[in-house]
Amino acid sequence: MTIPEDRDAGSAVPARAGTVISVDAMGGDLGPAAVVAGLDRSARKNPDIRFLLHGPQDELARLVAKKRALRDRVELRDASGVVQMTDKPSQVMRHGQGTSMWSALESVRDGEATVCVSCGNTGALMALSMVRLRKLPGVSRPAIAVLWPSRNPQGFNVMLDVGADIRADAQDLLQYALMGASYARNGLDLARPRIGLLNVGTEEHKGRAELHAAHTLIAAHAGDAHYDFVGFVEGGDIPGDRADVIVTDGFTGNIAIKTGEGTAKLVGDLLREAFAYTPLSRLASLLAYTSLRRLQKRIDPRRVNGGVFLGLNGTVVKSHGAADATGVSAAVKLAFQLAQSGFSERLAQRIAGATETAPAPPAGPKNGTHA
Amino acid sequence: MTIPEDRDAGSAVPARAGTVISVDAMGGDLGPAAVVAGLDRSARKNPDIRFLLHGPQDELARLVAKKRALRDRVELRDASGVVQMTDKPSQVMRHGQGTSMWSALESVRDGEATVCVSCGNTGALMALSMVRLRKLPGVSRPAIAVLWPSRNPQGFNVMLDVGADIRADAQDLLQYALMGASYARNGLDLARPRIGLLNVGTEEHKGRAELHAAHTLIAAHAGDAHYDFVGFVEGGDIPGDRADVIVTDGFTGNIAIKTGEGTAKLVGDLLREAFAYTPLSRLASLLAYTSLRRLQKRIDPRRVNGGVFLGLNGTVVKSHGAADATGVSAAVKLAFQLAQSGFSERLAQRIAGATETAPAPPAGPKNGTHA
Repeated sequence: MTIPEDRDAGSAVPARAGTVISVDAMGGDLGPAAVVAGLDRSARKNPDIRFLLHGPQDELARLVAKKRALRDRVELRDASGVVQMTDKPSQVMRHGQGTSMWSALESVRDGEATVCVSCGNTGALMALSMVRLRKLPGVSRPAIAVLWPSRNPQGFNVMLDVGADIRADAQDLLQYALMGASYARNGLDLARPRIGLLNVGTEEHKGRAELHAAHTLIAAHAGDAHYDFVGFVEGGDIPGDRADVIVTDGFTGNIAIKTGEGTAKLVGDLLREAFAYTPLSRLASLLAYTSLRRLQKRIDPRRVNGGVFLGLNGTVVKSHGAADATGVSAAVKLAFQLAQSGFSERLAQRIAGATETAPAPPAGPKNGTHA
Repeated sequence: MTIPEDRDAGSAVPARAGTVISVDAMGGDLGPAAVVAGLDRSARKNPDIRFLLHGPQDELARLVAKKRALRDRVELRDASGVVQMTDKPSQVMRHGQGTSMWSALESVRDGEATVCVSCGNTGALMALSMVRLRKLPGVSRPAIAVLWPSRNPQGFNVMLDVGADIRADAQDLLQYALMGASYARNGLDLARPRIGLLNVGTEEHKGRAELHAAHTLIAAHAGDAHYDFVGFVEGGDIPGDRADVIVTDGFTGNIAIKTGEGTAKLVGDLLREAFAYTPLSRLASLLAYTSLRRLQKRIDPRRVNGGVFLGLNGTVVKSHGAADATGVSAAVKLAFQLAQSGFSERLAQRIAGATETAPAPPAGPKNGTHA
């Protein structure tokens, strides 16, 4: 595969200090206007952010020109192809070279940015990320991590994998624990995150064989990798406060988050119906307006928009396909925070350290101290 | 294992017409008082219900005597042993003979009742049910089915397995589809339930190999078994309206329902906090009181309390361990409905029919008509 050389056809904005995020303008359900509106929001709040924006030059130039906050802060990279939601990952891997998604990843590959944001097709984005950015040394399966509203003081828990790969063996689950801990440190400012391993019960004899092996591995690395291991956790702990990071395989994780999202949405819709039911309840909803807004903000999935691809040379933030300006802006904020904290480099070091120190960790003790 | 012979030490209430439910009084977190209070509620609403109540004779007699609605409608069966929540299923299988749980199942085994209700230890209840009631001919893995609040007109969807067994191959998933369809017909009055197979995406190429095999099998039986197969569904469809019955393995199902429960509970708690936040919002919550009560009733897990064990000679309703009188009464209501509809017999016929007609179903067509 060749690296496209034509990407400097963009604007002539001079390079300037600030943290640069590479953004795929295309592939979201609401089109590039929503993406540009999201960047505008982020730029107005954050004077230190700059963008490499990938997509059809003329269309993007028109959209960007309308936003004053984006003046001098967006460098366009022309790419006329768009990865569609229905495209198969294997097709995109072979033929995706002229697309905005490919171009956005190339900026990370080339070191112009350390974090990329896209609203596009998740499967294609993961496949392209794997072949263009490549896996970190020591990682066999990259993972997608999400933030989930929780009872913890930080307001969210990290869960991974939520769908990068439907399989995971014990070693993969250990790597998810390491990557999730690193993400919690850099994305949620938790110095020593608590890791939980998702299972059907908290007793040590429960669940599948690979989970018992993973339990031993994750416990053995707790000291070196500076996390606490709380052992097995259950589905109810994903929004709970027993752990900050929930580790699971991508099949289970994907179904868990979609079940949680669907249930929260059902409750929200029924709540709206309940308030519309009588004149008295309609009045009540007016009186409670600010309180309900606060609640909505707390659990609005758009505010924590962004699955993060971990385990690659560089970080990719996958924004929801249906993200509007609020959603895109949330994904960009996360990308900025991860870029500023040097997350990609830290994660790479963490994985390299763990791989060196413990190719075959001891079966016990359960909570190894610093080796 | 011997069948205890001492269970007629109970009261001398004469047998009377009505549907008899066998109830384990012990093992719930709130003790037998909550169970008896639940039976009292049910008895007051339903003149046709009668109970065989298993547990320590003296204690139960005192509790029952206080409830006028239970007069002449409860037959006590003395059993002094109690299965604790911490007991291991294997222990209970070997040594559980004098317990109320064992005794409650014996009444189903002996044909005195077709449905049993217990709030006790789920693992022990399933293990005991397997050895005492035994699996239906043709069933290799029994399943636990739950009702889940949904957008469907009936208000709930059926999901199974939610934790009887952490494994399930394609044949098991087919049996779950058959059992779930039968449960939806008898528990939710749906003449032709729509079955969905839980996966990480709705495209046919997604997910694990056993899911593709199960897809073919379940589609092939749709005509004979009088259900519609809607194909793969996602986590968001569990509370949705694309399917009435969600089929999955017990590992995934257990994690999905616990995630959904935990998320709904978090939203509910945050909602309560939001309403307590300002004087205005407290006033609002008063005005909206009846609407909010209606919502709470709609999604209150106590109202749909009861996982149902399917695939045994007899039906077991597992009430939540923390069930209060409302929860116990809901489980009893479900047990009554299933007993009255002749569910146990119908399910046995359905499974027997499917096993006879199709030991090796054709790979296609996807929606076989009546063979």
